[in-house]
Amino acid sequence: MTEQSVLDALGPLAGAANVHCHGADAPDLKALGQARYFIGSGFDTARLGQHGASLRIIHCTSAGVEKYLPLNWLPEHAILTNSSGVHARKGGAFGLMTVLMLCEGVPRHIHNQRRHHWDNRLSTGIETKTIVFVGFGALGSAIAERLHPLGATIIAVTRSGQTTELADETYAISDLDKALRLADCLVVCCPLTASTRGLIGARHLSLLKPGTSLFNISRGPVVDNEALVQALHEGQLSGAALDVFDQEPLPADSPLWDVPRLMIFPHISCDDADGYIDRCLSIFADNIGRDLRGEPLRNVVDADAGY
Amino acid sequence: MTEQSVLDALGPLAGAANVHCHGADAPDLKALGQARYFIGSGFDTARLGQHGASLRIIHCTSAGVEKYLPLNWLPEHAILTNSSGVHARKGGAFGLMTVLMLCEGVPRHIHNQRRHHWDNRLSTGIETKTIVFVGFGALGSAIAERLHPLGATIIAVTRSGQTTELADETYAISDLDKALRLADCLVVCCPLTASTRGLIGARHLSLLKPGTSLFNISRGPVVDNEALVQALHEGQLSGAALDVFDQEPLPADSPLWDVPRLMIFPHISCDDADGYIDRCLSIFADNIGRDLRGEPLRNVVDADAGY
Repeated sequence: MTEQSVLDALGPLAGAANVHCHGADAPDLKALGQARYFIGSGFDTARLGQHGASLRIIHCTSAGVEKYLPLNWLPEHAILTNSSGVHARKGGAFGLMTVLMLCEGVPRHIHNQRRHHWDNRLSTGIETKTIVFVGFGALGSAIAERLHPLGATIIAVTRSGQTTELADETYAISDLDKALRLADCLVVCCPLTASTRGLIGARHLSLLKPGTSLFNISRGPVVDNEALVQALHEGQLSGAALDVFDQEPLPADSPLWDVPRLMIFPHISCDDADGYIDRCLSIFADNIGRDLRGEPLRNVVDADAGY
Repeated sequence: MTEQSVLDALGPLAGAANVHCHGADAPDLKALGQARYFIGSGFDTARLGQHGASLRIIHCTSAGVEKYLPLNWLPEHAILTNSSGVHARKGGAFGLMTVLMLCEGVPRHIHNQRRHHWDNRLSTGIETKTIVFVGFGALGSAIAERLHPLGATIIAVTRSGQTTELADETYAISDLDKALRLADCLVVCCPLTASTRGLIGARHLSLLKPGTSLFNISRGPVVDNEALVQALHEGQLSGAALDVFDQEPLPADSPLWDVPRLMIFPHISCDDADGYIDRCLSIFADNIGRDLRGEPLRNVVDADAGY
């Protein structure tokens, strides 16, 4: 992010703006004290709480906000906004790819390749598969939208269970057990909150049909990886893919790297080498315009829901 | 394939039919001598030539017919038909998956996982990629049809270069060099014929932009794998996937198994655990009806073109 990229995003609002860009290690506390709008990633909430009394919008360039919760540090007049939705295109295509891989048995083929083992057992097509989404926000919807034309059956599990056009069926989270029993592939794409931490553990995995697969594109702590590895080992899971981990980067000595039929991605599913920051800046600039016109902001983080 | 599955496919024609099912090792030469219609895979052309004087249609359950060429064994009144098109749904989804994997750098991620190496370099989205198809029959079209909605640019290279709705641009095979220079990912999906054998070798690979990827879903001998491995080694290719090989099953001592950033699939891209034979039988039964009504057959193999 550069001053110019911020000015470009602001468009007509740029004329009245003073933009300051600083690394976390070299903050300009005087500028922060006068700033009305802030955008950043992995920022120091204590510092913003202490020096950001003039702030009206604090925007983070991630969709997940678990590291900023609870919001007891938030300056009195400030609102926290996130970048939910910027991942839809990249994450949607990545999710489509990964669900296809899991349904096709690619983790098994990778394992077989290491052993020089030719096993041409066939899978059935994606049109015979039921994909269960735990969480169905911008990311889950974007994945479903790309899977649906291929004939996959889409089941969404959400807090409310309210029906959505992109899913064939929707279950409330209280009916998660029922939904899990239907899955050929489980996509975990809910936000990390107090109620989703450790949500998918041994008990839930035991409800899956033998041979189901799992993709965690949410946050590491939503899935109990010890239970996941056990389920892979026992064949309850035919394969799995993780793009998120309790600790990132995943330490070189983590046993997860070597688990057969487990694919490790280095948290790259949703970010794009092109234009990612520009899409974040576009939400930020849109919200600045809304604030100046006295309109409600978009992408406001709900402290109670945790996203 | 069972007698019942053939009768089911024949529908109203079944009443007048005598169906005989035999393995290649236990042929019924008397039945063959009286048969008008034949369906099989990997069949003995000399035997059909010698004993199939009454045959009118010989149908093979593959799309590729290279092992039956030249057609000098074909009984005088018989026509060879193939199963081109039955792969469209499964192969289309498999091709979509593999192109997404190659464009996302999955072969690199697999290699990094083996080394416990976290490298979260990002790729750009599929909507920034140009996919060049060498061959654009039923299979290539099915892959392109699934990639196009994601925003990928599709370039088809065909014998004639005639434009097609599913491609943004079409080149004649004589302009292959030009098309190769545009590729971010090269999909080889032409039939194996005298003119495509060894088509993609060192010279053609050297025309690709550094970092291009390649998927061979055609037949092994269309691509020179020694040149491919060299191009992977030198980084000209960022990754590759092969579903077809000169010798299948790929021998356990083949060096291909261990090439970094090369994915090996055991010829499973186009066949479906469900319904594959039924779709072949449906073409066969349709052609029997056409023959009985004196109408032109579909999926007739062109001996000159080789497919």
